[in-house]
Amino acid sequence: MSEVRRDIVTDTWVIIDTENDEIPKVPVGDSGLSADCPFCEGHEGQTPSEIYAIRENGAPNRPGWRLRVIPNIHPILKIEGELVKSGVGVYDMVSGIGANEVIVETPEHVTNFSKLSEEQITLVLGTYRQRIEDLHRDKRMRYILIFKNHGPLAGASTMAHTHSDLIALPATPVRIKQKLYGAQEYYSYKERCLFCDIIQQEIEMADRLIFQSDEFVVLAPYASRFPFEILILPKRHCYTYKEINDKEINDLAKALKKVCQAVYEILEDPPYNLILCDSPNLLPKASYWATIRADFHWHIEITPRMYRTTGFELGTGFYINHIAPEKAAAMFRGQL
Amino acid sequence: MSEVRRDIVTDTWVIIDTENDEIPKVPVGDSGLSADCPFCEGHEGQTPSEIYAIRENGAPNRPGWRLRVIPNIHPILKIEGELVKSGVGVYDMVSGIGANEVIVETPEHVTNFSKLSEEQITLVLGTYRQRIEDLHRDKRMRYILIFKNHGPLAGASTMAHTHSDLIALPATPVRIKQKLYGAQEYYSYKERCLFCDIIQQEIEMADRLIFQSDEFVVLAPYASRFPFEILILPKRHCYTYKEINDKEINDLAKALKKVCQAVYEILEDPPYNLILCDSPNLLPKASYWATIRADFHWHIEITPRMYRTTGFELGTGFYINHIAPEKAAAMFRGQL
Repeated sequence: MSEVRRDIVTDTWVIIDTENDEIPKVPVGDSGLSADCPFCEGHEGQTPSEIYAIRENGAPNRPGWRLRVIPNIHPILKIEGELVKSGVGVYDMVSGIGANEVIVETPEHVTNFSKLSEEQITLVLGTYRQRIEDLHRDKRMRYILIFKNHGPLAGASTMAHTHSDLIALPATPVRIKQKLYGAQEYYSYKERCLFCDIIQQEIEMADRLIFQSDEFVVLAPYASRFPFEILILPKRHCYTYKEINDKEINDLAKALKKVCQAVYEILEDPPYNLILCDSPNLLPKASYWATIRADFHWHIEITPRMYRTTGFELGTGFYINHIAPEKAAAMFRGQL
Repeated sequence: MSEVRRDIVTDTWVIIDTENDEIPKVPVGDSGLSADCPFCEGHEGQTPSEIYAIRENGAPNRPGWRLRVIPNIHPILKIEGELVKSGVGVYDMVSGIGANEVIVETPEHVTNFSKLSEEQITLVLGTYRQRIEDLHRDKRMRYILIFKNHGPLAGASTMAHTHSDLIALPATPVRIKQKLYGAQEYYSYKERCLFCDIIQQEIEMADRLIFQSDEFVVLAPYASRFPFEILILPKRHCYTYKEINDKEINDLAKALKKVCQAVYEILEDPPYNLILCDSPNLLPKASYWATIRADFHWHIEITPRMYRTTGFELGTGFYINHIAPEKAAAMFRGQL
């Protein structure tokens, strides 16, 4: 019989159907080699002016960089203008204020994140922190989403050169609110961080644990929505990625490279999304999320996307997963 | 500038980006003709025994039917067994109890719902009511989801013969809870049904109205998550599809055929999902949703699926839509 598991954080239920647990076939991805790639070093003139860069030498928008942050050339939200909230009868609207940046992760035409060096991934992770810090100063930005789309089935654009996307939003995402509420409810009952308890339990039970480093725990979540879903949690309780320290960044770079390589090898370069789940931009006087420093715990989700979602997922917000997370974790452990 | 619109019901925000509003290209679907289709009349022996049928003549599981309901041959939830709720440390689980049925909508090998006759669609809609009534008697079933997946990009199986899927769940979906909460909050403030107010406003504003029949309103929702999303609401306030009357069923069959034909023609047979959004199975003593009869209002969502979702939708629960619903509604009106 299948199990119906609840994601305690978001109140999302997942049907774990272990009776048909063939490993899904991975659609063939594109190799995406491009001589004219605007993200490659030397092609800076093909992109908008950089917002931020890590350079060894050279002036802005010239060669000599190791990592570059540029505005998205087709921004869906714009930084200029006032944040106006208005009503349209019963409906609510805010103006399309926000930011839409691209973090170009390497000057070379590397098309797979797992092929970057640990050192280069360290620069990427440090840039995530820098961009969140910077954008949080602007109180119109309610939430900074950093994510990766790898492969067309995960919604990747035609840009194969490895990069992360950043979207700063003028409203707190409903999925983050669900997580905040779930964590808050647990905390108000237990006076403990839900995520800290999950870390402790997963280390003890071990069957969903993929590995642990000095600073991080990598596991297949109990209510995995997708086959081979991965959750990465910092061992140190911390509500926001903004406060990650350099030692943790170095350790996370190693862990991420290791796990992304395992995903690449076991699932043969599958489409996936990587999502940084952080706290919203706390407003100075908002009692709204008073306990957030104590009860929320930032984390990273990696979701291979071999299935298409159907009317079931759209209609319910629930998921069906044919690979038990215990099986996925065992396969990952076997690969590491 | 794009607009960021809030779906007042679910607290989902949608970025309506009208600056790049090309009509998305529709991937080519499969024609799916099959001489050996197990859903066709005469092939009853290839399916599990029928749960329900509308017959002109013949014994069960023999030819002579006009519509057939059968168990899914690979059920993800099973009807037999006790509903056991248990804990796994901090996590919650329920046993995989439920039902997974297929409503075969016609004895002929029709592969597109919009090609069914109004009379045949009337039988389908009556069957929805019958199945919900029947399954609600079983109080282990907390929510009955009826939906359609059309085309591979909408998650359709290899069965091209037009059919609806039914999944009875042992937990109330988070998306339905979001709708119930949204409706409840509005009601507690206004003492009016949110959906009734939406109907009135959309008829008055007219720019998102696709058409209205005697009993139904068909519109492009204000915060459409997908290009050409469609919302169908009964004009008569009613919290559950179980109480739809025969006159409404006849009228809805006409409206559905009309709108599905327009979708087929404008978007050239796109992949889409159709979802019936109903109340959960009310438990006799649950004060849980005390006001549900007054504040919830059943409806149908039709979502063409020309885009893949990315890390943005996964990470936020928000959506980006490049076609303004006002434009979509105008195109539909032009086609009708």
